[in-house]
Amino acid sequence: MVLRIGFQGEHGAYSEMAIRAMLDTDVETVPHHAFDDVFEAVQSGTDDRGLVPIENTLAGSIHRNYDLLLRHDLHIVGETPLRVEHCLIAHPGVALSDVHVVRSHPQALAQCEHTLKDLGVEIEAAYDTAGSVRDLRDSGAKDAAAIASRLAAEVYGMQVLCEGIEDDHQNFTRFLLLSRDSVQPDAADVKTSIVFALSNKPAALFRALACFALRDVDLTKIESRPIPGSPWEYHFYLDFIGSQYDGVGRLALGQLAEMATYLRVLGTYPRAH
Amino acid sequence: MVLRIGFQGEHGAYSEMAIRAMLDTDVETVPHHAFDDVFEAVQSGTDDRGLVPIENTLAGSIHRNYDLLLRHDLHIVGETPLRVEHCLIAHPGVALSDVHVVRSHPQALAQCEHTLKDLGVEIEAAYDTAGSVRDLRDSGAKDAAAIASRLAAEVYGMQVLCEGIEDDHQNFTRFLLLSRDSVQPDAADVKTSIVFALSNKPAALFRALACFALRDVDLTKIESRPIPGSPWEYHFYLDFIGSQYDGVGRLALGQLAEMATYLRVLGTYPRAH
Repeated sequence: MVLRIGFQGEHGAYSEMAIRAMLDTDVETVPHHAFDDVFEAVQSGTDDRGLVPIENTLAGSIHRNYDLLLRHDLHIVGETPLRVEHCLIAHPGVALSDVHVVRSHPQALAQCEHTLKDLGVEIEAAYDTAGSVRDLRDSGAKDAAAIASRLAAEVYGMQVLCEGIEDDHQNFTRFLLLSRDSVQPDAADVKTSIVFALSNKPAALFRALACFALRDVDLTKIESRPIPGSPWEYHFYLDFIGSQYDGVGRLALGQLAEMATYLRVLGTYPRAH
Repeated sequence: MVLRIGFQGEHGAYSEMAIRAMLDTDVETVPHHAFDDVFEAVQSGTDDRGLVPIENTLAGSIHRNYDLLLRHDLHIVGETPLRVEHCLIAHPGVALSDVHVVRSHPQALAQCEHTLKDLGVEIEAAYDTAGSVRDLRDSGAKDAAAIASRLAAEVYGMQVLCEGIEDDHQNFTRFLLLSRDSVQPDAADVKTSIVFALSNKPAALFRALACFALRDVDLTKIESRPIPGSPWEYHFYLDFIGSQYDGVGRLALGQLAEMATYLRVLGTYPRAH
């Protein structure tokens, strides 16, 4: 069976690249306009899985997707990191010296600022990275280039003029694979993501972390985020090495449930390295 | 003396609005192209202060500015929250029904998606919110509008057609005021921001939080972030209620210094409510 995997953006988006890198089996990638649509498609069963970015090493956590995780009843069944390598893309036969204007999403333009300054080109904002390549193909312009993934160049039959033009190469995005049904992983090396809330008392977080620390459970991420509409109350997002199904991970979650005012396990999934 | 306060963006940017809301004294606001330039201007003494966004309730922490805090020797001397209210802005005399195209930064366009869908307008990406208002003024176009702050409309002599057009009104950005010299606040109600690293042992974070918890020091934010170039090592960003200069805050920091492999106090400053 060919799995249908939803992602946000146009064909050639970094999310689609991450799907191709993660899942070597035969999959059908399904573009969606917004992150909400990816979640809806998985929830309704239209898509089998959805892949969404959750954090970027330069820009930070994508809170929109944390919020959508809370609003839907989906399970995290995998994770994958993608090195974001921006490519300068033009029509076949165009030389670098022909390029006078470069278009892309403002975040991609900002991440390539030094390169673009050295090239001395004009920059123009676009709504989307892969979309800027498609628009360039449609326009036929030979004096322009777009910044997007290598996959975008392949999808639209365009040429990569330069690769890795981002100023900071420590540019990684971590993606989560979402499923309507939970999938208990076979792997031994797993990670579990949870979200919880605590009563607003001093040392509440300290006591919550004791559930993990006193069992030598390693944390790989912790983040607090104000609960919308509830000033001074926080959701804590926490990832730990271990499983919700057995061992010390399960025991730690049991103790956390005793003190948390809210606790949801978002998923246990094979850890990506 | 008129204080020179640097910010990133064009005149009319949300950052400039935050400066006006925060500092009622006479200040000169100085636009800069990039966040780096704001930090450099304060470090070199060209500007007296800099105001930069550090987190947004929808988009999350702005890690770029956390990184720049680490790379510069500046002090946080204040904070201010700004409710981000997007305005639809056009030439004076233009009616809502005249508007067929709306331009702004993609993030602003995305945050007003439902409103724009209801209006049935075409959308176009721009590099900047305030810049899209300035460009609209320069073009003279009467069938177009831009999305930006109320201040941007005032700065460029344009008309606000609608205000608060963002889909989610829980849209706040927290800004930090930076200074080359530390300023010990007079206020009793203060917050302290720190960044630290720990040796990579289980329960290391738990022990670090004990410094605060065992003294009943309240935390208002905690976030972990991978240290670039050092896989599996993290910087922790933590805000607590209290001072670095006296009381239990100072004692907690003393104990944290015993176990931290890196510790820097970014500033103690009056708490905004």
